[in-house]
Amino acid sequence: MKKILVLGAGLSTTSLVAYLLDHADSENWKITLGDLNLDLAQKKVNGHPMGEAIVFDICNLTSYVKVIQEADLVISMLPARFHILVAEACLEHNKPMVTASYEAPEIKNMEAEVQAKGLIFLNELGVDPGIDHMSSMRIIDDIKSKGGKLISFKSRTGGLVAPQYDNNPWNYKFTWNPRNVVLAGQGTSMFIRNNRYKYIPYQKLFSRLEKTHIKGVGDFEIYPNRDSLKYRDTYGLGDIPTMIRGTMRRPGFSQAWDVFVQLGITDDSFVIEDSINMTYKQFINSFLKYDPSIPVEDKIAAYTNIELKGEIMKKIEWLGLLEDEPIGLKEATPAQILQKKLEEKWGLDPEDKDMIVMEHVLEWELQNRTYQTRSSLVVKGKNQDETAMAITVGTPVGIATRLLLNGTIQTPGIHVPVKPELYNPILNELEDLGIKFIEETRKL
Amino acid sequence: MKKILVLGAGLSTTSLVAYLLDHADSENWKITLGDLNLDLAQKKVNGHPMGEAIVFDICNLTSYVKVIQEADLVISMLPARFHILVAEACLEHNKPMVTASYEAPEIKNMEAEVQAKGLIFLNELGVDPGIDHMSSMRIIDDIKSKGGKLISFKSRTGGLVAPQYDNNPWNYKFTWNPRNVVLAGQGTSMFIRNNRYKYIPYQKLFSRLEKTHIKGVGDFEIYPNRDSLKYRDTYGLGDIPTMIRGTMRRPGFSQAWDVFVQLGITDDSFVIEDSINMTYKQFINSFLKYDPSIPVEDKIAAYTNIELKGEIMKKIEWLGLLEDEPIGLKEATPAQILQKKLEEKWGLDPEDKDMIVMEHVLEWELQNRTYQTRSSLVVKGKNQDETAMAITVGTPVGIATRLLLNGTIQTPGIHVPVKPELYNPILNELEDLGIKFIEETRKL
Repeated sequence: MKKILVLGAGLSTTSLVAYLLDHADSENWKITLGDLNLDLAQKKVNGHPMGEAIVFDICNLTSYVKVIQEADLVISMLPARFHILVAEACLEHNKPMVTASYEAPEIKNMEAEVQAKGLIFLNELGVDPGIDHMSSMRIIDDIKSKGGKLISFKSRTGGLVAPQYDNNPWNYKFTWNPRNVVLAGQGTSMFIRNNRYKYIPYQKLFSRLEKTHIKGVGDFEIYPNRDSLKYRDTYGLGDIPTMIRGTMRRPGFSQAWDVFVQLGITDDSFVIEDSINMTYKQFINSFLKYDPSIPVEDKIAAYTNIELKGEIMKKIEWLGLLEDEPIGLKEATPAQILQKKLEEKWGLDPEDKDMIVMEHVLEWELQNRTYQTRSSLVVKGKNQDETAMAITVGTPVGIATRLLLNGTIQTPGIHVPVKPELYNPILNELEDLGIKFIEETRKL
Repeated sequence: MKKILVLGAGLSTTSLVAYLLDHADSENWKITLGDLNLDLAQKKVNGHPMGEAIVFDICNLTSYVKVIQEADLVISMLPARFHILVAEACLEHNKPMVTASYEAPEIKNMEAEVQAKGLIFLNELGVDPGIDHMSSMRIIDDIKSKGGKLISFKSRTGGLVAPQYDNNPWNYKFTWNPRNVVLAGQGTSMFIRNNRYKYIPYQKLFSRLEKTHIKGVGDFEIYPNRDSLKYRDTYGLGDIPTMIRGTMRRPGFSQAWDVFVQLGITDDSFVIEDSINMTYKQFINSFLKYDPSIPVEDKIAAYTNIELKGEIMKKIEWLGLLEDEPIGLKEATPAQILQKKLEEKWGLDPEDKDMIVMEHVLEWELQNRTYQTRSSLVVKGKNQDETAMAITVGTPVGIATRLLLNGTIQTPGIHVPVKPELYNPILNELEDLGIKFIEETRKL
């Protein structure tokens, strides 16, 4: 019997725990799920004979040495900042570790020790990062193996509401961490196009859009992610002329969001002292010139150069941000105030289902011809526990865990899934579970 | 005999050291000027019998304990981040201290100890902060003493080139720290107008301008400073409905600067890796869409919504930023690259003189009438050592030092010059030296 310790029972663990429990009998596993909230962990284990729920408090990690010592593998689904603590404990007690999160530099710094002990730590095994790496690398390696030369790589992902439940003017609902959505893109975004580095400051990001169409689910717009350059080396594309990673939204979203950026209401760096006494309309007005004789809509239109009666203004009005409703938050930042209203309006209704869309567009040359390969994935949620996000984050973590425990993955070290040893078996099993890319290649 | 230790012999110490040496005989002072660069310190002391130049290295402060112990007062003109080290040494060795810089919270935290020892630390004794506080508070206290009630306080300062030498399309030259000019306004600026808090994000700052005219020197535009709110309590104006502090530029400057903000080239948070191989034109193009068929001027005009043949574009072209001239900086941030070119073009010519302009506009009520008081100061530099900036920063520091050593200033503690005990004698002596505000009050 192998013992798996899963730390954290949040949103993204539903499908992971389900996968692990489904395989517990056949693989002879025992699953221990630890969370601060015992009820939550118990609910996910759901009385399964091979499952166990425990209280786990990362801030009191030393009390759980025995739990870690007894485990054969540790999966950290805790908030990303805690992974380093788990990693240190795993290193100390010689346990392999799996996470869905970005490989933090502090963890990567442990590589020599991890290798010396013959351990395996796997990171970036969710959807983005995770499935995006695996599916991209399978295509890239395939093109290279034919002798092809990559000249352009574009990859984009969106977490959205499924089309059937897409019924608000923004064509957007929160299906994941709202705070990340509100703060997305702050700073300067960078990518490379035709061998030229390109930089887009936050105040221009939501007006520098690409478009795409994905069969069956329709049109999308794409804005660039903060850093499209960092995976060039990881992907073995150090000299690729064009590389852009992006985020997908429904058409029209970004132009309207840009009004918030221009107003300044996505700022999280200072507190609006009297927010507790303000209405949303007063909040918006505090970013506009003082003139009580001009309606707030007119001020916004003039200030951000949008039409007073256009679609963008309709989106903003629909949110209720221009109404004299109390905010009810004390000493909140602009971003926190905006997030509160967005959560009210962009929350999922009980029947709503979410959707993950991902697309890679690669251009490559072979024998003086240029080809384009488009590969896309659409995953829809089953319900509000088994969301598309939970499925696509949790399932590859579960599969990787199985492959690690059964000896399919053997190379010691700290890895992200960009090698065939990792991506092939994981992608194959995801396909069996219906998480399947559709790929088309044509000559340009 | 009293010994004064001046630390730092940079730009702003010329007038300070001149003031101190001028008074050395009559006041029976000995002046020790310490700097890393002994030549620089010697040049400023200029062989004066009561002056002495020494090598001083703040990073090696423990070697200078004797120098501090021997002093009766220490003036720190070092970069602001070092004041705390000087303050700690002054506290330890029971020495009063004077600086021209913003009172850092770490220094203010020493208040109880400074008071317990009966010491006096004076901060914000330059021009802005410094003369602005003193001249504002004299007017504010005068209005209050009449029974008047302040309803609006606006204050702005500009460091500019004197009109006679103002001969470039920007009507601007660097007369102080170029880096501060390039990074000015980043974040969100906040002030209060008609009892409403107002917030302006960086991307809108340079389009939210006020205007003013100062007799004899002409028209100016004003953009708001980062935090106009923090001096409300210091000035005793906690409930004032309108308070805005700002920076003055010549008309047209801000609209053109805003193009740099919109492009993103004032960003100091990331490095352009290949800057050493780029030209200024390529640098600008890296913030614009890839399209070799469109001239960079056309791209800028379309992207930032300015006229292709207008005054703004002329200002940008005049700088040479659109030319294929190598940058010659390795791994530089956008802000560093921009600064390099601006220093070439906005540097003072050998004969150029600078100018400080300051204006306070106060509105106040008395016996059901509303009055406006405008108070303005214009100081022009004498030459490139005794610049207006050096005169207005160094002279009040020198005067405060004299007042402290002769016992006129007696209240122990850490102060900024907002009390009559400080501002009256300093402003009076500044007036005798020709640094004089012109004040007008009219009924509104």
